[in-house]
Amino acid sequence: MKLHEECGIFGGIMTSGVVAPIVQNGLFMLQHRGQESAGLCCGDEDFSLHKGKGLVMHVLPDSRIKDIRGKIGIGHVRYSTQGCSDTLNAQPFMVRYLNEKVSIAHNGNVKSAIEMRKKLEHEGEIFVTSSDTEMIMKKVIKVLCKPPSQWELKEVGQVLLDNFTGGAWSIVFAVPGKVLAYRDPLGFRPLFFCEAEEGFFVASEDSAFRHLEPINIIEIEPGECVEITYNNYKISRFAKETKHKKCVFEHIYFSRPDSNVFGRNVYMTRVELGKKCAEENPVKADVVIPVMDSGFAAANGFVHHSNIPLHMGLLRNHWVGRTFIVPGQKNRKNGVQRKQMPIKPVIEGKKIVLVDDSLVRGTTSKEIVRMMRKAGAKEVHIRIASPRVVDTCFWGVDIPTKQELIADSYEFIADLTKFIEADSVAYLSFDGLKDVFGKTGWCYNCFEREKNYD
Amino acid sequence: MKLHEECGIFGGIMTSGVVAPIVQNGLFMLQHRGQESAGLCCGDEDFSLHKGKGLVMHVLPDSRIKDIRGKIGIGHVRYSTQGCSDTLNAQPFMVRYLNEKVSIAHNGNVKSAIEMRKKLEHEGEIFVTSSDTEMIMKKVIKVLCKPPSQWELKEVGQVLLDNFTGGAWSIVFAVPGKVLAYRDPLGFRPLFFCEAEEGFFVASEDSAFRHLEPINIIEIEPGECVEITYNNYKISRFAKETKHKKCVFEHIYFSRPDSNVFGRNVYMTRVELGKKCAEENPVKADVVIPVMDSGFAAANGFVHHSNIPLHMGLLRNHWVGRTFIVPGQKNRKNGVQRKQMPIKPVIEGKKIVLVDDSLVRGTTSKEIVRMMRKAGAKEVHIRIASPRVVDTCFWGVDIPTKQELIADSYEFIADLTKFIEADSVAYLSFDGLKDVFGKTGWCYNCFEREKNYD
Amino acid sequence: MKLHEECGIFGGIMTSGVVAPIVQNGLFMLQHRGQESAGLCCGDEDFSLHKGKGLVMHVLPDSRIKDIRGKIGIGHVRYSTQGCSDTLNAQPFMVRYLNEKVSIAHNGNVKSAIEMRKKLEHEGEIFVTSSDTEMIMKKVIKVLCKPPSQWELKEVGQVLLDNFTGGAWSIVFAVPGKVLAYRDPLGFRPLFFCEAEEGFFVASEDSAFRHLEPINIIEIEPGECVEITYNNYKISRFAKETKHKKCVFEHIYFSRPDSNVFGRNVYMTRVELGKKCAEENPVKADVVIPVMDSGFAAANGFVHHSNIPLHMGLLRNHWVGRTFIVPGQKNRKNGVQRKQMPIKPVIEGKKIVLVDDSLVRGTTSKEIVRMMRKAGAKEVHIRIASPRVVDTCFWGVDIPTKQELIADSYEFIADLTKFIEADSVAYLSFDGLKDVFGKTGWCYNCFEREKNYD
Amino acid sequence: MKLHEECGIFGGIMTSGVVAPIVQNGLFMLQHRGQESAGLCCGDEDFSLHKGKGLVMHVLPDSRIKDIRGKIGIGHVRYSTQGCSDTLNAQPFMVRYLNEKVSIAHNGNVKSAIEMRKKLEHEGEIFVTSSDTEMIMKKVIKVLCKPPSQWELKEVGQVLLDNFTGGAWSIVFAVPGKVLAYRDPLGFRPLFFCEAEEGFFVASEDSAFRHLEPINIIEIEPGECVEITYNNYKISRFAKETKHKKCVFEHIYFSRPDSNVFGRNVYMTRVELGKKCAEENPVKADVVIPVMDSGFAAANGFVHHSNIPLHMGLLRNHWVGRTFIVPGQKNRKNGVQRKQMPIKPVIEGKKIVLVDDSLVRGTTSKEIVRMMRKAGAKEVHIRIASPRVVDTCFWGVDIPTKQELIADSYEFIADLTKFIEADSVAYLSFDGLKDVFGKTGWCYNCFEREKNYD
Repeated sequence: MKLHEECGIFGGIMTSGVVAPIVQNGLFMLQHRGQESAGLCCGDEDFSLHKGKGLVMHVLPDSRIKDIRGKIGIGHVRYSTQGCSDTLNAQPFMVRYLNEKVSIAHNGNVKSAIEMRKKLEHEGEIFVTSSDTEMIMKKVIKVLCKPPSQWELKEVGQVLLDNFTGGAWSIVFAVPGKVLAYRDPLGFRPLFFCEAEEGFFVASEDSAFRHLEPINIIEIEPGECVEITYNNYKISRFAKETKHKKCVFEHIYFSRPDSNVFGRNVYMTRVELGKKCAEENPVKADVVIPVMDSGFAAANGFVHHSNIPLHMGLLRNHWVGRTFIVPGQKNRKNGVQRKQMPIKPVIEGKKIVLVDDSLVRGTTSKEIVRMMRKAGAKEVHIRIASPRVVDTCFWGVDIPTKQELIADSYEFIADLTKFIEADSVAYLSFDGLKDVFGKTGWCYNCFEREKNYD
Repeated sequence: MKLHEECGIFGGIMTSGVVAPIVQNGLFMLQHRGQESAGLCCGDEDFSLHKGKGLVMHVLPDSRIKDIRGKIGIGHVRYSTQGCSDTLNAQPFMVRYLNEKVSIAHNGNVKSAIEMRKKLEHEGEIFVTSSDTEMIMKKVIKVLCKPPSQWELKEVGQVLLDNFTGGAWSIVFAVPGKVLAYRDPLGFRPLFFCEAEEGFFVASEDSAFRHLEPINIIEIEPGECVEITYNNYKISRFAKETKHKKCVFEHIYFSRPDSNVFGRNVYMTRVELGKKCAEENPVKADVVIPVMDSGFAAANGFVHHSNIPLHMGLLRNHWVGRTFIVPGQKNRKNGVQRKQMPIKPVIEGKKIVLVDDSLVRGTTSKEIVRMMRKAGAKEVHIRIASPRVVDTCFWGVDIPTKQELIADSYEFIADLTKFIEADSVAYLSFDGLKDVFGKTGWCYNCFEREKNYD
Repeated sequence: MKLHEECGIFGGIMTSGVVAPIVQNGLFMLQHRGQESAGLCCGDEDFSLHKGKGLVMHVLPDSRIKDIRGKIGIGHVRYSTQGCSDTLNAQPFMVRYLNEKVSIAHNGNVKSAIEMRKKLEHEGEIFVTSSDTEMIMKKVIKVLCKPPSQWELKEVGQVLLDNFTGGAWSIVFAVPGKVLAYRDPLGFRPLFFCEAEEGFFVASEDSAFRHLEPINIIEIEPGECVEITYNNYKISRFAKETKHKKCVFEHIYFSRPDSNVFGRNVYMTRVELGKKCAEENPVKADVVIPVMDSGFAAANGFVHHSNIPLHMGLLRNHWVGRTFIVPGQKNRKNGVQRKQMPIKPVIEGKKIVLVDDSLVRGTTSKEIVRMMRKAGAKEVHIRIASPRVVDTCFWGVDIPTKQELIADSYEFIADLTKFIEADSVAYLSFDGLKDVFGKTGWCYNCFEREKNYD
Repeated sequence: MKLHEECGIFGGIMTSGVVAPIVQNGLFMLQHRGQESAGLCCGDEDFSLHKGKGLVMHVLPDSRIKDIRGKIGIGHVRYSTQGCSDTLNAQPFMVRYLNEKVSIAHNGNVKSAIEMRKKLEHEGEIFVTSSDTEMIMKKVIKVLCKPPSQWELKEVGQVLLDNFTGGAWSIVFAVPGKVLAYRDPLGFRPLFFCEAEEGFFVASEDSAFRHLEPINIIEIEPGECVEITYNNYKISRFAKETKHKKCVFEHIYFSRPDSNVFGRNVYMTRVELGKKCAEENPVKADVVIPVMDSGFAAANGFVHHSNIPLHMGLLRNHWVGRTFIVPGQKNRKNGVQRKQMPIKPVIEGKKIVLVDDSLVRGTTSKEIVRMMRKAGAKEVHIRIASPRVVDTCFWGVDIPTKQELIADSYEFIADLTKFIEADSVAYLSFDGLKDVFGKTGWCYNCFEREKNYD
């Protein structure tokens, strides 16, 4: 499921050698955070910008990477949204200022972005893109009014604090001679630093350093920032400690299983969520089938608690192109049916438990239940390893409206179960979620009932 | 692992509407059988050919597909080999003959191909490609000497029999007004027919019909052939029944888990192989880790027998581009390390059983064992859900030479274990394999000891 | 020769049908004004932008044009400069403002652009490009502070007047529902309006309307502007009449021979310049050879006065790509020799008059003289149908510095003749130029001596 | 006008360095002979083939050329025909034979090609392309039956003689270690050899050696052949001397003005044809206007004899893309009007003589006459500097059928004049043509009346 405008950032400076292949590889490792567009900006004094729509392997192939010079670089992958898949919104965003270039890559969302933009435009500001990133860049430049190469770590942080407090931002800037990175004080999005043999780097997830030879990996705390120069780095605090609002969906869905965000391993957390879900929602069944790829860990946790055997009853096709010509009116097959393929002997005559990480719109689940029935399932029970999503995300942009949330359409589980055509549907409880993650430090905003714990 | 020149074919005729998107989708479903090149040839009286190096989504994107006319079409995906990745060898292969066009797509290998080619060349024959496919086409044309639209189903079959008996061939021809398909009498490679609402089709695997609305799916038997016309089809026998030599590697590795080749489901067969392997080679361990993606089903079978818990301890990155710039000498990371990523908390301090489908060269396994050790594994045991591969494939072209086979380098398991740096290595026995598949009807040629059962 | 940053603009609104193919064709007709980059921006309420480096046929092929919607459109071709051939500087330039899009295309140069930019940047303004066009856009938006769809023809003109007087600008804006076009009060660059059966349009030259069915073509006067709406247009004056500074190089070199800029036909003007040059600088010779393509009309004028026979002694190769691999050290052939090819029998043993439109750097001329000698010319006399260029252009950006001007390096014609290795070199006199064009109304700034006539 | 399937070939071996950029440049110089497709084949022992549809600059850009290895290379440009612009027919054509590769490029036409092909196909031969070139290759291979590296210069020539006498062929082969080139005994098409500092080369025209440092250029005579090895070359005769049939259209239209084919300069020949035409067909007029580009030399000759002043009254647009979207029904402008643009002041109120090199279909001429009238011409007289074309070419493939020839539709000049809407139309007489070229040695087959002089 997709709730937020999720993205991935990477940046850093090489000790020696060009940085472009390192950034490219970092983006490969972060590709799961966004497949709409990719880009990087590299250089030393001057920078060159390379971005476009599509996967990293298409936008930034080796043939393009090999000609990109410079030790300093930042990169970005952007999540695919319906509305505004404009190439202009691809990141990094670069401008010229006082005979220098400066570029920015951003993962997160600015609070009250629309109002802030309207206000600035009425003051005569112009925007080339429709993204928040341009607004952040503008603010920093307007306030500091000096060449980017002279920007100091904390003063940039202060501009961010003064203008964007309450928003979600993991940001990286490349200026001549420096890379500057910031994690917002509430800490919605993760940010990591890596001292490697190759140089110093930051990234949205620690698993994005896999292609390096890491000496030390540090999770940047909420309200902390990093300055990287050619042969040094500095991590410091630019905002006072406050209560955190770490996005719990980073663990439920966004991050890679082998990442360790917010101090804990993602895969193991998902297994735990699956176990807890099994504990709370027992079911008599013959086989547990994960909804691939993201539901596997939770399904495995469910298995470990319930002792129902696991089977890969749904095969995921990774090769299918993103859009499909529907070949003639006769063809009624949709995207789900082309990407998720049932393995009949696993299903036929069996009582099935389908385990998924989350349930937002419900349309995919309905399709999958039908597939199961068509393949001969005797019963189909759905278990969701996270609570009901009852509200849109305040820090997201490309979210379903409240009306699109299945939890909004079907207040009672019985109705929802009927809609999805399952034999039963059960969620992890909100209390169960808190048992796994803890009572405080997390943003639980989108989940049912006992909201705003912090 | 990769042993043979594995490929995938698709073809058929629409009842109404253009065939190109149907072929494209069929190739998406067969992409696992070959990622080197893709192509299709469509038309009615005249044909147009579209092929190139790369994945289906790159070579045959919607933008290209939408302009391709015709109800008749065949397509092909080709396996990536080192030596001869020439675009010229991409299939289908099309020629003009007697004012008509005819095209062919082929999955398999001709016996004594090199000698046969040399002999023909000495008679003055010329070849544009280095593939067997061109030779098959030439033979059929030379013998029949009449316009392809007049070729009859059985006479083409007779030419194939007369010249290529002993080889492996699932072949599909497109001629004006007809599609003709053949499976060799020994039945090395699978071939399926599908009567669908959209029309009549053939494909290497039954799962390639997923995007259609199938009415009836039939596995073409060894020595059988199919003729498809605009509104009819005919399945008949062109060769006498003989002992079969179905390639057991179709189940062990090549085919998709949701396919049902040679009369049995691939996923379930792999689970059974894993169970049998666990039965024969018990081990005391904390966790079973599958080598993804192909080792999962066997690992799951191992788990079902051994009751050791399964964990996804190795994450597979599907996003990484095929080639990598090695960024500076400092970077010692190789391809395996970028594609297979250990999840540390699953591994640390644990006794691990790594389960894979087969072991051919051994280099990847060695890398993975090292990763496990680095992630803190206490013990690493390797279990292979198929017997030792001790010989190259007579029906393959792009196989490791005997010297590259790890079983050839290390006769004794103890030496092999030491080389791979594992705590133990164990294979499914040849008898175990036969227990799963049966004594006859299969090609067991490449496996240890009791060869040539048939 | 190339002196200024010369560009071409096109814009307008269709009565019915989409505008993109009309803009594309207009740009084909203006391609001679700029080959570095091309772009267009089309729409109705919303706009889409399409631009890139290269010729119109490469950047805006039919395959791209056919998907571009909208009745309103503007386009631009940009002249190829060494330094800043950044794609970012391609035009049109589009921004979002108050929930609308607005785009601009500009032919000309802003006076004191660098100082103005610096000042704005110190006030916190950011620029994405390094072009003047962005600055013009910013100024208009900042001053008007209202949705582009509400911009009025004259108020935009007033902003231009207030900020950019003294500069050269033929500008066209596309806003939702309207196209607005302006010619600066001094009238450096041409601008035309066309009422056609297809709709209403503006362009840098009247020959850019060739693909239309024109009903009426009007040259926009200096200080005039045009508003085009879906079914109407209005031409009015936004600046007081003043002395004009029409760029004489539009006739000497920039514009197309079949255009009628500044009230006179370009081809006929060049013929007249050639005649005048022949009158002033007679020479005894066997044959007149034009330096193709731009020198032909002047050479023909020279012939008509001198009665020396004309021959195409230099063949121009239009097919050669823009860059060349120099194939090995042995190859000493440069670009001129690949583009200009002598026809030996025309040259051998003859006294040659080479006629060109202008002489700026002198390097090409030197090469051509050598070719003539090698082909057996007895004498080579150079006649230039315009006066010496002794100063850079105040309204240009990509000009040779004064040091690169051959007139600067060789004050005395004798030295210049020696450098170029010709038998004689002679220019049209400045008085001769004024005889053809008239004493006032023109910018003669870059020519020798009696400058600043106006 | 276009009568034959005209093409250009280039080939040779470098003394040192790679050959690909040299072949690429040779093809740039031959681009006028064919714009449909381009290709080259380079290597030493092994060859790589690179070809496609489009101009040399698109198919073989520097970015592609720079990776092509080898000292030996041949290249081809192909003329654009309506029917069979299949990429498959692009040349060179390469095959594998006896573990070697051999490639061929061909300019000309095989006599009775269709019958010969049919016969071979009935013997079981298969053709991949529809071009004669493949047939020539097949014949040579079939007869010689030995590795291409062992082919001897004369034995290949003998195969050509035995099978293709009567046809037009300038052929170049690349085999491992050698380049072999042949000109047919009748000598329809030109062929040149060049000893240069860079190595030894052959080409369709001598002007194709412009990018080299030639030491010696030799026109290969009809019936002669050339063998080039790494450090030597040999020109010899493989066919007895016979009467020649040099294609007179090479001078009238095909070849470049700066080439010297069949022993005479093309430009000067065209001037002479124009003079002779003026002599035979005097007219009282104010201005001579050439139909650009190919009619210029003839028009200039016409001027030199008639003393009527020349003017560039029609401007040719070289920038226009090849295909055009017709933008809406209102637009009635066709291709001619977009490529040929009248310069009104040259035409208005004048009696015009339009001079063109030849008149085949007459459709373009009619368009141009209309343009002239619309631009205000008082009279429009057409003068054609070659005789009436009354027959199709026996050695051409892509020719108008006899019915398409305007001379066939309008037997009487008066009718033709009326059709074209001119005031008068006059051709150079056949006798006039022979005065310029001589009575024998030429193919005059397509011209009026006294055919088959040889």
